[in-house]
Amino acid sequence: MLAYLPPNLRDLQLPLRLRLWDGTQLDLGPQPRVTLVVKDPSLVAQLAHPSLDALGGAYVEGRVELEGPMSEVIRIGDALSQALEDESDTCQISRTPHDKDSDAAAISYHYDLSNDFYALWLDPQMVYSCAYFETGTEDLEQAQQAKMRHLCRKLRLQPGERLLDVGCGWGGLARYAAREFGAEVFGITLSRAQLKLARQRAKDEGLARQVRLELLDYRDLPQDGRFDKVVSVGMFEHVGHANLPLYCQRLFGAVKAGGLVMNHGITAKFTDGRPVGRGGGEFIGRYVFPEGELPHLATMTAHISEAGLEVVDVENLRLHYARTLEHWSARLEARLDQAAQLVPEQALRIWRLYLAGCAYGFARGWMSLHQILAIKPYEDGSHNLPWTRADLYR
Amino acid sequence: MLAYLPPNLRDLQLPLRLRLWDGTQLDLGPQPRVTLVVKDPSLVAQLAHPSLDALGGAYVEGRVELEGPMSEVIRIGDALSQALEDESDTCQISRTPHDKDSDAAAISYHYDLSNDFYALWLDPQMVYSCAYFETGTEDLEQAQQAKMRHLCRKLRLQPGERLLDVGCGWGGLARYAAREFGAEVFGITLSRAQLKLARQRAKDEGLARQVRLELLDYRDLPQDGRFDKVVSVGMFEHVGHANLPLYCQRLFGAVKAGGLVMNHGITAKFTDGRPVGRGGGEFIGRYVFPEGELPHLATMTAHISEAGLEVVDVENLRLHYARTLEHWSARLEARLDQAAQLVPEQALRIWRLYLAGCAYGFARGWMSLHQILAIKPYEDGSHNLPWTRADLYR
Repeated sequence: MLAYLPPNLRDLQLPLRLRLWDGTQLDLGPQPRVTLVVKDPSLVAQLAHPSLDALGGAYVEGRVELEGPMSEVIRIGDALSQALEDESDTCQISRTPHDKDSDAAAISYHYDLSNDFYALWLDPQMVYSCAYFETGTEDLEQAQQAKMRHLCRKLRLQPGERLLDVGCGWGGLARYAAREFGAEVFGITLSRAQLKLARQRAKDEGLARQVRLELLDYRDLPQDGRFDKVVSVGMFEHVGHANLPLYCQRLFGAVKAGGLVMNHGITAKFTDGRPVGRGGGEFIGRYVFPEGELPHLATMTAHISEAGLEVVDVENLRLHYARTLEHWSARLEARLDQAAQLVPEQALRIWRLYLAGCAYGFARGWMSLHQILAIKPYEDGSHNLPWTRADLYR
Repeated sequence: MLAYLPPNLRDLQLPLRLRLWDGTQLDLGPQPRVTLVVKDPSLVAQLAHPSLDALGGAYVEGRVELEGPMSEVIRIGDALSQALEDESDTCQISRTPHDKDSDAAAISYHYDLSNDFYALWLDPQMVYSCAYFETGTEDLEQAQQAKMRHLCRKLRLQPGERLLDVGCGWGGLARYAAREFGAEVFGITLSRAQLKLARQRAKDEGLARQVRLELLDYRDLPQDGRFDKVVSVGMFEHVGHANLPLYCQRLFGAVKAGGLVMNHGITAKFTDGRPVGRGGGEFIGRYVFPEGELPHLATMTAHISEAGLEVVDVENLRLHYARTLEHWSARLEARLDQAAQLVPEQALRIWRLYLAGCAYGFARGWMSLHQILAIKPYEDGSHNLPWTRADLYR
């Protein structure tokens, strides 16, 4: 059967072992670190064009098994696809219309999976977004604390200020802003599982009066400028290009004049949605984040300012997200037995590939992470931001 | 003749006195701070729709005189136009094709006006771009020093590094980077007057070996990645939308992998070039910066990343530019007699309005100022930037 394999596969000298359904083994290079177990003859032909999407799909569907460190799996998969993929195979990343029902379903698919599963590999506060490594040597928990502090400092959050948290997840940032900065937080999510645990944790910490959490669509946010500050972390990736203008308008309508709005999220490498990094985007769209769409920084910037907000500070944290995902992936890999008790086998396969694959993708620059701080100036164009950003680093 | 004035002019209660060709005076409100001297009956009808563009043009052409503080002139002019202007009058800001000849002519028009004139009201280093007020209390010279330090720090400039300065003006930043950070600077400009003085000053300061300056178009920059860092201050406003992709490609080609590229410049309020602030843009295009075009931050961001650079840090200094222009305008107003010896009367009228008008426009938010720092990552997506921006504030 090895005769069916593309002849140039051996030229790559990859540290990869192939094991076929009949027990045949083939090492594609010295000292294999990963074994690809091909359980089904029909897969062999696909190996001629092994895009990350195709390999990932075969693994999720159980037609191949992968043995070895997940980070090596991704690295070798990328090398394979780089060498062998037919570039014409790559497809445009889809952009779809979004409505409240489809958004609610998409959010539920990902975030309602299992609170206990996420708790297995997230930090204790369950902050599910890019951490902030101030020195590069701190652990995940410290880096997530530092991220929340960095966000609150960028927002110049003051005691008693009303903070809107759009897409509040398990409420880690809401609790932090209330506890450490004395804010009155209103957080919204579309995930019932997140809301339940987030409310419970706020209550357990005695923050129930300071942290109000609701199941609410961003389209239904109050538009009377009642909030002093707005923070949105890992949220705009779910909005879809078609609705980004509306999304920005809703944030504008929610915040008072003089108020700050922080959008922290994953951004695309290119402005036009063309694929990068030899695939992976299709896998993410199909199995991980249905309806997810990554806007380019320029796209976000345009919509934010067309809504009447002014971009005052942008920071790129791409390599911080690579590091964050390495932590998450390593923590999940270290608890696979427990994880298998909490989610279906297919979900576990998806999340293993997704976390390791995104760590790799951020490191390579296939996508990025930007914190975009904007202000709603007063009518006369003025605002009260400090002259410099030095206060963030004192 | 006052019967020709629009009847609602008096309702505005503006602190403005009108004095007509026949000596008639009319105060539009109590305690007039500005007198508009109308020398020509044909102007009266225009006052029905007094856009900033129309008022500015009449002043430049000598058909009206303006008496009073220039900042009050602008403020009252804006109030007038806000109340009376026919909005359908406002025209799209023009975008034109640019080529080497037209760019050279446009640059010469503005920057070859008179070195001595610019020296009258700029700081001693003749830095002709937005300063950086770290506390808000420093003087112009200190703020320009702080700006140059801020730029060099953002570029993480190290001794011996080769810095390309695109649009080097009178060489203030080039000399600063060489003297204070030990850089080897290559600066280019299209202004012969700037080049001559910039070279002389570098020689006078004993920096001739460290600071090499040439009359060169950005399109002709070496594309062999020979520069460690690139800085471009107040330059992309002259490039034109049609050539921004090429401009960004040239910066990409000039810098080595791992190198940083800083673009500091004025950005438009809207992405599509529609006018803001009831006019003023046409005046600037006609009399001040022919061929000038302000791109939106989103436009710059898109072109920078499409060229292969990655945006890592953006800072908005809009109110710093308002302050800078207030300094420049006040310094010019304090030296009008000397200025009149150096440039034609019409040029002086233009520059008086332009400096005061832009101070007002930045304060109001009609345009903005962004420092956009980008990196050319290594092939594998990595780079050596510090994890945080804290080093900028130590």
